[in-house]
Amino acid sequence: MAKKAKNQQRTHDPAHLSELLRVGEGFDLAATDSSGTPGFSGSKAEGEAALEAGADALSQLQERLFAGGFSGTSADRVLLIIQGMDTSGKGGIVRHVVGAVDPQGVRHTAFKAPTPEELAHDFLWRVRPQVPGPGLIGVFDRSHYEDVLIVRVHDLVPADEWEARYDTINAFEAELAAQGTAIVKVMLHISPDEQLRRLEKRLYRPDKYWKYSTADLDEHAYWDSYQEAYQAALTRCSTAVAPWHVVPADRKWYARWAVQSLLLNTLTTLDPQWPAAKFDVEAERARLKALLTAG
Amino acid sequence: MAKKAKNQQRTHDPAHLSELLRVGEGFDLAATDSSGTPGFSGSKAEGEAALEAGADALSQLQERLFAGGFSGTSADRVLLIIQGMDTSGKGGIVRHVVGAVDPQGVRHTAFKAPTPEELAHDFLWRVRPQVPGPGLIGVFDRSHYEDVLIVRVHDLVPADEWEARYDTINAFEAELAAQGTAIVKVMLHISPDEQLRRLEKRLYRPDKYWKYSTADLDEHAYWDSYQEAYQAALTRCSTAVAPWHVVPADRKWYARWAVQSLLLNTLTTLDPQWPAAKFDVEAERARLKALLTAG
Repeated sequence: MAKKAKNQQRTHDPAHLSELLRVGEGFDLAATDSSGTPGFSGSKAEGEAALEAGADALSQLQERLFAGGFSGTSADRVLLIIQGMDTSGKGGIVRHVVGAVDPQGVRHTAFKAPTPEELAHDFLWRVRPQVPGPGLIGVFDRSHYEDVLIVRVHDLVPADEWEARYDTINAFEAELAAQGTAIVKVMLHISPDEQLRRLEKRLYRPDKYWKYSTADLDEHAYWDSYQEAYQAALTRCSTAVAPWHVVPADRKWYARWAVQSLLLNTLTTLDPQWPAAKFDVEAERARLKALLTAG
Repeated sequence: MAKKAKNQQRTHDPAHLSELLRVGEGFDLAATDSSGTPGFSGSKAEGEAALEAGADALSQLQERLFAGGFSGTSADRVLLIIQGMDTSGKGGIVRHVVGAVDPQGVRHTAFKAPTPEELAHDFLWRVRPQVPGPGLIGVFDRSHYEDVLIVRVHDLVPADEWEARYDTINAFEAELAAQGTAIVKVMLHISPDEQLRRLEKRLYRPDKYWKYSTADLDEHAYWDSYQEAYQAALTRCSTAVAPWHVVPADRKWYARWAVQSLLLNTLTTLDPQWPAAKFDVEAERARLKALLTAG
């Protein structure tokens, strides 16, 4: 009993976790351990149990959030932005963390390479229509940050163009926050060796071939440039209303627990309430009773 | 052991279930029992266990479906259309059946009362952009069928206009089927008394107030007109490529098991396969090995 209470305490402190993982003054991605488990001192099995335990809490908070949006009593909504190198586990976060809540309340968008039409517009053109409405949890699997990541690494637009985007992104996110969007940004941080091991796995399992592309190893060669681009995006776009969190992700179970905890923390802070009745409860009960007894 | 095998047999026969629930010649909604459990002779607890057991199978088939769409090796996709009177449990199907699969592979749309802009267009205008792409499971919580249900009951357009829509719907669904869409249409069938009991529950639980509207009881008075409109939609739009299934839904656990079984049946028939490698597997393994040993 005492042991259990101790485990609970040490493994569940999401508020503290936000601080631990937040990108602040003097942040250095290169100095950040990708294999750590900050804020969680338990084993993998304990981490998986904590994830399962958190799923219910997340689901219940999400239902209240949804109810507020549905009823028009709250403008609150959540936007989870997931970034990370190939194989960092973005899809696993969607499946194992977001997958715990009601699909009706989730608006999921996976941003792929832009189409010619999208490229002909400002980089936020395709992003704006995908932001979540009241009561929803929006999930961006990749996002507008690709426009200062892959675009910067491969010089897809002139430098002065991507250079201007950091401010544009900050203004965009501030606008979303002002509308009632709680923004949770997570960068899943893996080591280059861990990426190679994960790619290797895909090459030895025929049910994973579809996730592999020869471009993956081509891109691996640009690892350092990507880390530089991430360092810039993380530090220049970690604002008070939309801070970045760097989540060590060499251990998938930890990354899932950490992202779930960040979401739980955000929703707990929003503290969504069941909407009050917008009708005369007694009158409706009487009306219903009459119908039930007549039936 | 023998008992278990027997249970398995009696509780899991999805192929047979499709036939049992399908709307065919001489179908009569008024004569269809809303409290039955066709195709399932077990208890509620057994039904819930079967639902849980089916979730894994559904999730695995969905991942293969998704892989085929992602890789461009298959045009297959699924569209689940859920209709039913208020409180019939449409949301519960989304949560408890669809919720078992990866959110990345689901495209969920809840069709509400149309906006003025939507009303200014043909009734399918707002529906077309929501149909699922390759590899996805589209879910319509309400659908284009509202345009021959509520619209017909309340004379929202002239009779000759809604009258023409049955053929338009059949042509639309045939077009989707020809593109590779497996269409699963379910009508959740409850009794008027069951609806009143469910509405009553919402009036005695503050966490359910948000789901209640005074319009619900107003609409209840049109029960017979709705059943007539459903009878017409079900019989006129149950086609070979897009048959209707009427799912008795007074027992939520049964309805969920039944819809899951219909989806499982559809996916089992599609039999999605892991895409073959589109690259030279041996060459990529060698390339990766060189990087791993260099690192």
